[in-house]
Amino acid sequence: MKRIYLAGPEVFLPNANELGLRKKQLCRDYGFEGLFPLDTEIRMGDDNENLGFVISRANEGLIHDADIIIANLTPFRGASADVGTVYELGLARGLGKILLGYSNDPTPFTQRTFALFGDGPLHLHNPGELHDRNGLKIEEFGLNDNLMIDGGIHAASGEFLLHDATDSQRFTDLTAFERLLAQLKARSF
Amino acid sequence: MKRIYLAGPEVFLPNANELGLRKKQLCRDYGFEGLFPLDTEIRMGDDNENLGFVISRANEGLIHDADIIIANLTPFRGASADVGTVYELGLARGLGKILLGYSNDPTPFTQRTFALFGDGPLHLHNPGELHDRNGLKIEEFGLNDNLMIDGGIHAASGEFLLHDATDSQRFTDLTAFERLLAQLKARSF
Repeated sequence: MKRIYLAGPEVFLPNANELGLRKKQLCRDYGFEGLFPLDTEIRMGDDNENLGFVISRANEGLIHDADIIIANLTPFRGASADVGTVYELGLARGLGKILLGYSNDPTPFTQRTFALFGDGPLHLHNPGELHDRNGLKIEEFGLNDNLMIDGGIHAASGEFLLHDATDSQRFTDLTAFERLLAQLKARSF
Repeated sequence: MKRIYLAGPEVFLPNANELGLRKKQLCRDYGFEGLFPLDTEIRMGDDNENLGFVISRANEGLIHDADIIIANLTPFRGASADVGTVYELGLARGLGKILLGYSNDPTPFTQRTFALFGDGPLHLHNPGELHDRNGLKIEEFGLNDNLMIDGGIHAASGEFLLHDATDSQRFTDLTAFERLLAQLKARSF
């Protein structure tokens, strides 16, 4: 049975464990085993810095063990996906895993970034010359996130699926996640 | 001569090429060859989505070619490092490269995240129970950024160096970068 590492910002939600169980059940429904970051039992200690390293090491281990990564790339505290998830996606790419991602916000990256960091109305700017309020370039490649994210998934023959979830379901809607599982099943390993 | 991939948000600055040249010169000064993302000549075309993929593929190629990555992890448009840089750090980790990083903002990640997304004074919150305004957990591990970033560098026996640059030099100050080059030279490959 192929194993899927379930990357995403769910770990920061109050109901992280419940969401992990839901995702793992869906994996089973489609014939896969899901590996969730909180699966590894880690005890809190006084040494918090060391605890951070222990969790990181455990997650890297799960990614090594997985055949596939499905990353929840829904924008998190800004215009882009959660950086922890993005690191894991890069690690999985380096390890030659199958890469899949989804976002519950279908707004293109350029528009999203401009809305948060740009100045004035977008249509008044010349295409190819978009900058933020600090004069830093804003990517205009028609992609879903930073080009390294979309590009890595594309180069690995993966899929970056978009779904328009309601605001209250932004981090919990599993429509796109389940669609990716169905696609994976159809690949018939 | 060992090759160093120069990851960072410099590519978004107006003087990106000049900064790339400065970083590459410093690499030479310490006996290394620097590989900068904009080194690969890519021609603008009409097909911007494809152009994003071409740049991504070129950058991934440079990371494959490198022995070492030095990532500028200075916070970019939020509390964390630039996601493109973070993806590249993860990729380099997966490929078994030497990982080094620096940030020109020495504020700990917990404080930085709380300042942008938290509610009220930090000291009124119980340790271990920090959340943002949306009820999402804020990491409290005494680290410089998301634990996967600090943890990956730590697991690779690398170094995540901090430097307090002035605001106007936040993305251009090369003090920490040069210090890492000196450390690398002392490792005597």
